[in-house]
Amino acid sequence: MAGNTFGQAFRLTTFGESHGGAVGVIVDGVTPGLPLTETDIQKQLDRRKPGQSDITTPRKEPDIAHIMSGVFEGKTTGTPLMVILYNSDADPSAYDDIKDKFRPGHADFTYLKKYGIRDWRGSGRASGRETAGRVAAGAIARIQLEQMGISIVAYTLKSAGITCQTFDPDAIEKNPLRACDPDAAAEMEKKIAAIKDGLDSVGGVIECRITGVEAGLGEPVFDKLDAELARAMVSIGSVKGIEFGAGFAAAEMTGSGHNDEMDENGFLTNNAGGIIGGISTGAEIVFRIAVKPTSSISRPQQTVNVAGTAATIRTEGRHDACICPRIVPVVEAMAALVLIDHHKRQKAMHA
Amino acid sequence: MAGNTFGQAFRLTTFGESHGGAVGVIVDGVTPGLPLTETDIQKQLDRRKPGQSDITTPRKEPDIAHIMSGVFEGKTTGTPLMVILYNSDADPSAYDDIKDKFRPGHADFTYLKKYGIRDWRGSGRASGRETAGRVAAGAIARIQLEQMGISIVAYTLKSAGITCQTFDPDAIEKNPLRACDPDAAAEMEKKIAAIKDGLDSVGGVIECRITGVEAGLGEPVFDKLDAELARAMVSIGSVKGIEFGAGFAAAEMTGSGHNDEMDENGFLTNNAGGIIGGISTGAEIVFRIAVKPTSSISRPQQTVNVAGTAATIRTEGRHDACICPRIVPVVEAMAALVLIDHHKRQKAMHA
Amino acid sequence: MAGNTFGQAFRLTTFGESHGGAVGVIVDGVTPGLPLTETDIQKQLDRRKPGQSDITTPRKEPDIAHIMSGVFEGKTTGTPLMVILYNSDADPSAYDDIKDKFRPGHADFTYLKKYGIRDWRGSGRASGRETAGRVAAGAIARIQLEQMGISIVAYTLKSAGITCQTFDPDAIEKNPLRACDPDAAAEMEKKIAAIKDGLDSVGGVIECRITGVEAGLGEPVFDKLDAELARAMVSIGSVKGIEFGAGFAAAEMTGSGHNDEMDENGFLTNNAGGIIGGISTGAEIVFRIAVKPTSSISRPQQTVNVAGTAATIRTEGRHDACICPRIVPVVEAMAALVLIDHHKRQKAMHA
Amino acid sequence: MAGNTFGQAFRLTTFGESHGGAVGVIVDGVTPGLPLTETDIQKQLDRRKPGQSDITTPRKEPDIAHIMSGVFEGKTTGTPLMVILYNSDADPSAYDDIKDKFRPGHADFTYLKKYGIRDWRGSGRASGRETAGRVAAGAIARIQLEQMGISIVAYTLKSAGITCQTFDPDAIEKNPLRACDPDAAAEMEKKIAAIKDGLDSVGGVIECRITGVEAGLGEPVFDKLDAELARAMVSIGSVKGIEFGAGFAAAEMTGSGHNDEMDENGFLTNNAGGIIGGISTGAEIVFRIAVKPTSSISRPQQTVNVAGTAATIRTEGRHDACICPRIVPVVEAMAALVLIDHHKRQKAMHA
Repeated sequence: MAGNTFGQAFRLTTFGESHGGAVGVIVDGVTPGLPLTETDIQKQLDRRKPGQSDITTPRKEPDIAHIMSGVFEGKTTGTPLMVILYNSDADPSAYDDIKDKFRPGHADFTYLKKYGIRDWRGSGRASGRETAGRVAAGAIARIQLEQMGISIVAYTLKSAGITCQTFDPDAIEKNPLRACDPDAAAEMEKKIAAIKDGLDSVGGVIECRITGVEAGLGEPVFDKLDAELARAMVSIGSVKGIEFGAGFAAAEMTGSGHNDEMDENGFLTNNAGGIIGGISTGAEIVFRIAVKPTSSISRPQQTVNVAGTAATIRTEGRHDACICPRIVPVVEAMAALVLIDHHKRQKAMHA
Repeated sequence: MAGNTFGQAFRLTTFGESHGGAVGVIVDGVTPGLPLTETDIQKQLDRRKPGQSDITTPRKEPDIAHIMSGVFEGKTTGTPLMVILYNSDADPSAYDDIKDKFRPGHADFTYLKKYGIRDWRGSGRASGRETAGRVAAGAIARIQLEQMGISIVAYTLKSAGITCQTFDPDAIEKNPLRACDPDAAAEMEKKIAAIKDGLDSVGGVIECRITGVEAGLGEPVFDKLDAELARAMVSIGSVKGIEFGAGFAAAEMTGSGHNDEMDENGFLTNNAGGIIGGISTGAEIVFRIAVKPTSSISRPQQTVNVAGTAATIRTEGRHDACICPRIVPVVEAMAALVLIDHHKRQKAMHA
Repeated sequence: MAGNTFGQAFRLTTFGESHGGAVGVIVDGVTPGLPLTETDIQKQLDRRKPGQSDITTPRKEPDIAHIMSGVFEGKTTGTPLMVILYNSDADPSAYDDIKDKFRPGHADFTYLKKYGIRDWRGSGRASGRETAGRVAAGAIARIQLEQMGISIVAYTLKSAGITCQTFDPDAIEKNPLRACDPDAAAEMEKKIAAIKDGLDSVGGVIECRITGVEAGLGEPVFDKLDAELARAMVSIGSVKGIEFGAGFAAAEMTGSGHNDEMDENGFLTNNAGGIIGGISTGAEIVFRIAVKPTSSISRPQQTVNVAGTAATIRTEGRHDACICPRIVPVVEAMAALVLIDHHKRQKAMHA
Repeated sequence: MAGNTFGQAFRLTTFGESHGGAVGVIVDGVTPGLPLTETDIQKQLDRRKPGQSDITTPRKEPDIAHIMSGVFEGKTTGTPLMVILYNSDADPSAYDDIKDKFRPGHADFTYLKKYGIRDWRGSGRASGRETAGRVAAGAIARIQLEQMGISIVAYTLKSAGITCQTFDPDAIEKNPLRACDPDAAAEMEKKIAAIKDGLDSVGGVIECRITGVEAGLGEPVFDKLDAELARAMVSIGSVKGIEFGAGFAAAEMTGSGHNDEMDENGFLTNNAGGIIGGISTGAEIVFRIAVKPTSSISRPQQTVNVAGTAATIRTEGRHDACICPRIVPVVEAMAALVLIDHHKRQKAMHA
């Protein structure tokens, strides 16, 4: 009911506010006997953490993963696997200004409306730091998916008005944007630096490609593979849309142009993005998500305080001029979580 | 696990193939004491049924709703409310040609891969007829939402290359496209007629606007209101994408342009589409979905048969040249189901 | 949330009141490709139906199972399998007397308190007729369990002060009590006839034995196999207790007497009843349930009416003097449902 | 699917093995705005911890509760509330003897069968230490239940052949058995001391009484209040049975003797134990559970090792001669968890 659990057969429950004691996750349903170390998890968390480049926040957060249960002698036991990341002692007084004012674009107003109470320290539960638990769980899922030959790669396709023109998977982790085209990445970087200088921020489009998924995953009619991926992605902060395969362009096509015909070797095209009728086709799964510009900007903006009185706010501090490169590992993690869950569900269906 | 259940506090489970005995739904968690008749449900089902105009299939399906349980003396009892729609006796021999061949764009191939067995009569469970159960459940939800002052309206925004230029809610039910601009609707109709004559089909973009939702609905971090709407919408056959508020356009905006500032009267803009941090803001909820062109077209297409041998297929029969107007009531139903569920969940949170 | 769904990987949702249009069930998660006919289901339903002997109600209910979806050409398809049993046109005026008065032992008072509205025709949703959906779903589960070599047999162990002294599985279906000892059964029958003549009723103890379950089923720490069986059994109307293996007698034993020691051939005793730590041991699973006497008796009893005024009530009609033999197939069905669900869950765990 | 989550509207997920890093719980769905401190939780944990008397284990475990999230400025925030209890650095070599042998009565064998891997240090996940998370979550639930006037009290009714003859609620926390009759408690203590000297152990019967529950809680037909309590109680280690109200004695009664008649002031008797048709009647809820004798005894017992070879084992160490007094707070916690969940579910039903 309260929405902090994800998945059914591979199920995670996350906890934590940005300035409470810790953030983390319990994963229930991990296949027993998998080799797993804290390093496997740390590797993915390091891709999410702040301070990786000039275009993301220079804040330092330790983000060290500790496994507290579910692993014995280097192997998963099938019991709940708990990962915790302690928060460093932040100075909550740094947030005094936002204590009583709603930051535009942030969830300050809506959290107060929903819960009637709000932990105003650094966005509380609505902080991007919440995704650490997702990434940790995703890292566990990925170990098993890799064993099955499933590869998940996400990257910034578009940002600051620049669109990647090539797809070079090796380039992704080598540029601060995690863009798939090194030239476009360089251009993006320049434009984002200028936007940052103008005390502003920008969003982008992230694309995700998944290869190696066998045909047959997905649970119609409500838990279709694309429906679950959509929920997973839109549940990530800042994501405002998702499209599969041809996506919104499909709305402009004819049936004869859009249908993916087949021959003995499989599908001739992949307008469907690897999912038809909510079930994987065996072709590459492709989707794109729209990321809104970072809400925290240092410009003065109009808002109201908790009493409803008009006020001006400037969200001081060190913000992500573009959050896309830090969302990339979260997108991959959420995709991994959906896939491992559906893999297990398909086995249950046929058991 | 198997995915035919939707919602938690207001939970539906649907059943039925297009050519089995019946389709329908059980709704569990209906508020007791609501006035409800079969007519309330029929009204919504009639908007979904085939044969409403030239651009949709002229097939005749009875689609008569029968309430089998959960209503007593005209009121809901709080026990499971079951609605059944019997299938008319169709001639399955009409489907002999598709028995052994996979229709491009259809779920024939993926269902066989998933289940290892396929009811090939008229798409089986993957038929659009499956949505009748959703619409019936949505009709029940809408009665209660209307009592709360919540209004849900969906319409074709774009099809066949034509985009509505005005928003005239009164026009929607008066044109066969369910478009919100009567002039655009007329143009769409003409273009679709031509596409149909060319043995082809077309998709479109459907927009949905929801007013009257109080601030505070949605369950972070996974069951955010937009995440659940995304899952709900992408679970509808033919939907390939969804975006909220500014949506994919947000990826091109700056933070200062995208953030919705506030004053004493509320939000000055609504780029967020009425949801921030996964929780309703109290502003209008706005989203758009991408609908792919109808997969069934009468042109010959390349495919393979179940043995994997190349074949040609023409999907004979009477198809929807554009499915958008028939998806509109399904979009509204799914939105209603998400909202009533989150309304109840919010009450449980604060109980 | 509302509680009409059972199971996770093999999940049923039931519907129906005794005097509404129908009762039935949707089963989601059925393994595709299983041979299944309406006769397989009918066989089990016939064991539950009224009118089988003098000690149960002579009422005639048709109880004919119709499969409406999820089966194609004699095989399950993996899509929701819906079974419906239409109610015969009963004369609700027969229930006029109970319309305004609460029958002692019945759920009349509690249903009204819970829902604020009550379908008073023949106990409504609280009728034993509700179990028809469970039995139908259980019949499907049993087909698969039998293929795995799992056998489930329940029987009346005790009733009207008589306890079975032998365990003769072949006797069970040959006496109206479904007792495991034909001599005890004959005695029970006589004593129950006398109790019935005295316008009274009686309960009993039902025992269930399950063989062929491999070691390893059950999901600690909350969904332990015994915990789930306990929930399943206590959810059956009239059941007031359950015990596993030595059960309440274990409370009187010492550790050295209760612990089941092992040697190379397995467990030397089975005080645990085949479940330790919530997981099947591979030994026979044994549990017993307490069944209260039928609430409907023809003697005058004190009660109140809906206005809270004292009243006298005699529950006229043809009642089950002892409900045990009709609960036996329900116990078996619920056990089958728990086992098939946990079988599938175990496969998902190890997938 | 994996079974470490309990409840729907008030949902806990526990983690932890006895000798991993920590044990604990995430609670999702906590009503926001409740006053809560670590002391509130510690108070209940202290009742569960070892070392309270001679009849329980003298082991020292710190059992200090740390709240890591979900509380801000002394109030619950409605976001996941995480409580962690670090394990002290135990010497796992103390468990070398049980590493390869299955202790009779313990879950060593079944865990290995289920998961294929086993954390053999101190029972791992099957340790009673797992219940700390339940007690912590229950402590949160109880704060709210107490505000509603609901009182939950459990106590040892029977142990070592002695049955309490009086019900003195004030006596319960004043004797090491947590028995409700101080004289019986003294006798039990003596007899248990003798059993302990004989290197043996004993179980007992725990009774629980809940007052102040309004009529109307429970979700037929599967999530009946008694069914959920049964699952909750049987999920506690060592529990082998449960009965409500008259319980197994009901199997010996007639309908006229068992039915609880009513007059203007309510029920005249309470054979039902406060629940009819799976819904609370407003009367006191009464149930009893059977607790088996502690499995760990210092006598030599026959067993096999992991290779299947016969072996002898003596479970050395400091065991609970009778676990009943330490289970009492767990019973209360689980009851509280069921009640708060159903309270919230009932609000959702009527929302």
